[in-house]
Amino acid sequence: MSAATPHPADLSRDPDLLRDADGLNAPVADRRALLLRLAWSVIAEPGDGVAGRLAAALGVAGALEFVSTARERALPPSGADVSARELAAALERWRPRLGARLLRDAVRAARRARLTVLIPEGELWPSRLPDLGPHAPFALWVRGDAPALARLERSIAIVGARAATPYGEHVAGMLAGELAERGVCVVSGGAYGVDGVSHRAALGAGGPTIAFVAGGADRVYPAAHAHLFARIAERGAVVSEVPPGVAPTKWRFLQRNRLIAAVSGATVVVEAGRRSGSLNTAGHAAALGRPLGAVPGPVTSATSEGSHRLLREFDAMCITSCADALELLGEWDEAAAPSGERTRPETIRVLDALAPRAWRDADEIARRSGLSLAEVQAQLGLLELDGRVESDPEGWRLAR
Amino acid sequence: MSAATPHPADLSRDPDLLRDADGLNAPVADRRALLLRLAWSVIAEPGDGVAGRLAAALGVAGALEFVSTARERALPPSGADVSARELAAALERWRPRLGARLLRDAVRAARRARLTVLIPEGELWPSRLPDLGPHAPFALWVRGDAPALARLERSIAIVGARAATPYGEHVAGMLAGELAERGVCVVSGGAYGVDGVSHRAALGAGGPTIAFVAGGADRVYPAAHAHLFARIAERGAVVSEVPPGVAPTKWRFLQRNRLIAAVSGATVVVEAGRRSGSLNTAGHAAALGRPLGAVPGPVTSATSEGSHRLLREFDAMCITSCADALELLGEWDEAAAPSGERTRPETIRVLDALAPRAWRDADEIARRSGLSLAEVQAQLGLLELDGRVESDPEGWRLAR
Repeated sequence: MSAATPHPADLSRDPDLLRDADGLNAPVADRRALLLRLAWSVIAEPGDGVAGRLAAALGVAGALEFVSTARERALPPSGADVSARELAAALERWRPRLGARLLRDAVRAARRARLTVLIPEGELWPSRLPDLGPHAPFALWVRGDAPALARLERSIAIVGARAATPYGEHVAGMLAGELAERGVCVVSGGAYGVDGVSHRAALGAGGPTIAFVAGGADRVYPAAHAHLFARIAERGAVVSEVPPGVAPTKWRFLQRNRLIAAVSGATVVVEAGRRSGSLNTAGHAAALGRPLGAVPGPVTSATSEGSHRLLREFDAMCITSCADALELLGEWDEAAAPSGERTRPETIRVLDALAPRAWRDADEIARRSGLSLAEVQAQLGLLELDGRVESDPEGWRLAR
Repeated sequence: MSAATPHPADLSRDPDLLRDADGLNAPVADRRALLLRLAWSVIAEPGDGVAGRLAAALGVAGALEFVSTARERALPPSGADVSARELAAALERWRPRLGARLLRDAVRAARRARLTVLIPEGELWPSRLPDLGPHAPFALWVRGDAPALARLERSIAIVGARAATPYGEHVAGMLAGELAERGVCVVSGGAYGVDGVSHRAALGAGGPTIAFVAGGADRVYPAAHAHLFARIAERGAVVSEVPPGVAPTKWRFLQRNRLIAAVSGATVVVEAGRRSGSLNTAGHAAALGRPLGAVPGPVTSATSEGSHRLLREFDAMCITSCADALELLGEWDEAAAPSGERTRPETIRVLDALAPRAWRDADEIARRSGLSLAEVQAQLGLLELDGRVESDPEGWRLAR
């Protein structure tokens, strides 16, 4: 490191930087804590576990000081779960980003783009992010209505294929719209296909929606979504863990996926081919223990292969309706027919017309319940499937 | 009971009946045992648990003797798990069918229709039927090639909507044809829609297929399937537990479903509306602990609602291919791509190119494995989903 580079641990005492930081829209009392975290946000790529583990062991300030003074073959500090080899590789990739220039540029760009910056020590930090452990972001850069992030408490990520079929777009729109109507915040990635449709449907239903993007929050990718991103920023937020101006790369897309999975109460994959990035989001959701759902489709559609794999091998819930998606959050939508069957009034009436010992035939049950014979037979079939009634040539009764 | 009615326990000593029984095509050494079971097959409706429990306690002969001599308010025999009320109701429904006439008619009709009759004491009795306990049939009446029933050892039931969509018919045909090509016996119910397509595809692939029907095996229902039933009987069998000539009723359809679930190694539901009879078959399969699969479809299709319910609430396996269906039997089709992914050569090559500690980037893994970068990235995504590799800004390595 050349002597011309200012000591990174001094960044937070740099008067220019502190003044710039004052101009930032950040719900944080401690400007020094803010700048230290923004410095790490500039230095480390998303999901850099070595940075996270160093910061966990030494604190954000201590880690930055250690890194700025470390010689080339430095030993890992005691107490940090980092090997010498990991540290050497990390120092090599961090070195070009140390110093004040990149941080100052990021802060000024954030001011220009009117971004809000969030850190764990301040307000509005999403409550589920700490589950990422050493892979949690150091800061979030937010375009739009930062308080909308509080809505993540009751949120569902809807993700899927960029090259969605009309079927996938229809289902994504249906789910996102109905969830938004019920006040659930729809999270997605702002991409073409399922992502875009989900954001639009949520906006259309008057709900908040939040896009987590792989590049800087001031960038628009894909460019054709400029208007969509502007609308999302009006009603919700466009969020990134990388500083403004940073380009979206393949790695950053994969890491952005982990953020979507982490901040959302549940993740639903609508359409996913065998190589869809949304399978990566699903993998993160599963690894974090977040409820995971997948929307089935025709088995003849390559765009549903990934969804079916999630159903078959990863125990994803089969999602066919808004009510199913709400169940992922542990909520039951009594008004919705398909999944509310357990509590449908017809079911209750048929159960009421049954006895625990006496066998009753379908005609008698229809008479007692006041339902049609066809309805009674349908309900009895479902109840038998549930093991709640048993049948015999004499008829039906409640299961013992 | 009038004195004119011969004592049912004497049936098996009736010389006319014994002569008729000799003319039956039955792989059974003991004609008396055969006639006793055929008598019960005539007397009791399918799945009559009271008859089954009486026979379990007293033997088939003893149960028939008890019933033929029982007074109206007879107490249940000690040791039989039958209540007085159940017995009274059962005697009332059995009484009209006691005596020799109906049995003689059934035996003669079976001879005329060249049916083969099977009982547990003889050859070819399906090995899984005893799992039905007191609900197991007393006999099976078989049209066609009775030895084909040995093929039930490796069989899959494919059932679904009568009013199948072109999608459902396509998938049923694909599954049944490919399973038959691999020597799996396709079991179904001979109905319109999914059943018929499954039988036809199995026949088309040169495989055996077995139809379990709700009426007598000599009857054709639906009538338009006369030619199909004839072809099934040539290459496989049409099987019923009710005597020839008996009409299919709603009750007998439901009980026929339990037979399909019981004899098959696994059950796959292709398309099922909310009220489909195939949900009943699925319920029996689940109750018997048989592996259960369901083929997903568009969530916008009412004809897939039942299948999705099986996936969501009954833990059915998501079936998208023949390979998935074979997995239900505990078999793995290495040649099939979709589900053989775990053992695909590309996967093995990517794993071989990874190290347990050193991080390697995708380019290096592509170089080491000799695979394209795109293929490597796809495999890494899937392996990460499986928790077998982990990633970091430095690249990938085997999970610890």
